Amino acid sequence: MIYCSNCGTKLVERTPEGDTRVRHVCDACDTVHYQNPKIVAGCIPRLDNRVLLCQRAIEPRHGLWTLPAGFMENGESTEEAAVRETLEEACATVDHLELYGVFSIPHINQVYMMFRASLVAMDFKPGHESLDVRLFEEHEIPWEILAFPVVRITLEHYFKDAGNRCFPVHVENIISHPGRTSNRRKPFSESPA
Amino acid sequence: MIYCSNCGTKLVERTPEGDTRVRHVCDACDTVHYQNPKIVAGCIPRLDNRVLLCQRAIEPRHGLWTLPAGFMENGESTEEAAVRETLEEACATVDHLELYGVFSIPHINQVYMMFRASLVAMDFKPGHESLDVRLFEEHEIPWEILAFPVVRITLEHYFKDAGNRCFPVHVENIISHPGRTSNRRKPFSESPA
Repeated sequence: MIYCSNCGTKLVERTPEGDTRVRHVCDACDTVHYQNPKIVAGCIPRLDNRVLLCQRAIEPRHGLWTLPAGFMENGESTEEAAVRETLEEACATVDHLELYGVFSIPHINQVYMMFRASLVAMDFKPGHESLDVRLFEEHEIPWEILAFPVVRITLEHYFKDAGNRCFPVHVENIISHPGRTSNRRKPFSESPA
Repeated sequence: MIYCSNCGTKLVERTPEGDTRVRHVCDACDTVHYQNPKIVAGCIPRLDNRVLLCQRAIEPRHGLWTLPAGFMENGESTEEAAVRETLEEACATVDHLELYGVFSIPHINQVYMMFRASLVAMDFKPGHESLDVRLFEEHEIPWEILAFPVVRITLEHYFKDAGNRCFPVHVENIISHPGRTSNRRKPFSESPA
């Protein structure tokens, strides 16, 4: 962020009066440009004991497998965003959404909100951002070529909870450790089952 | 959003290739400026059968009562944001956070994430953004002068669930109706209790 999106003047970085953080500030029009985390909303589309995954056709992690998920848009609810992303990436229709995971990823300023969902029909196919879309049983999941740690963590929870037939909402933080790609720290809180 | 924050050129509004929505686009440096919903994280700080509310010292809704909550910052988890906002607005320390409500408010591009939390000590006092901070039993809640519909909805759920000693995670959308300040539509989903 270099220029003021309101008046075009070059921005300065300083802590505004009454604030505690350094912001991008415009001294010409007095606008403070805040930057905040983004929500990534997605689904775990299930059919019987199988889960739908998408093989990414785009960077980052081209060719790796993921749950359908993407940035929530203005004007949407979290569930609407999850449904839309599943339709866009897998041409798949889902219903009966239930919140399942809220994963904060502070080092990339994202919060994933993952919903369990029922796959409505078998007419799914790759959307523009996917190379392939397939249903996987637990033993078929391509664990070694999943796109993101949050996908692995979500699927690990899901199959464990499915075994217990009990799906609490998982609230966790995914922290980056130096020298490792990424890892999970202990849950901060978890809603009662 | 009028000027490109990357190069200072005047922006145009159009749908980028491969996209489905109108965005602010810079034709000089090819940057697409996305705008996404913001997370508001907050707490329901409880002590025995009482809940801590703050009287707002700032606009909007100056003088009305609210739960401590505010915009999540980059680099935080959702719980860290809720704890920080509670400290800033009520000088109150909380622990044992449990996710309780996820409220999408599409018409203002916000998602509230409210956590149940235990008030650690009685040394709370108004922060810079509060006129007063007080503990309220259910029958003392100033229902007619609450600052936002999301505060009323959260408190209604909370006291009802407290009566049942069972706190499911509530996932709802708060929709604006023409001619009314705001209102609640039916829950989209609610996690199992």
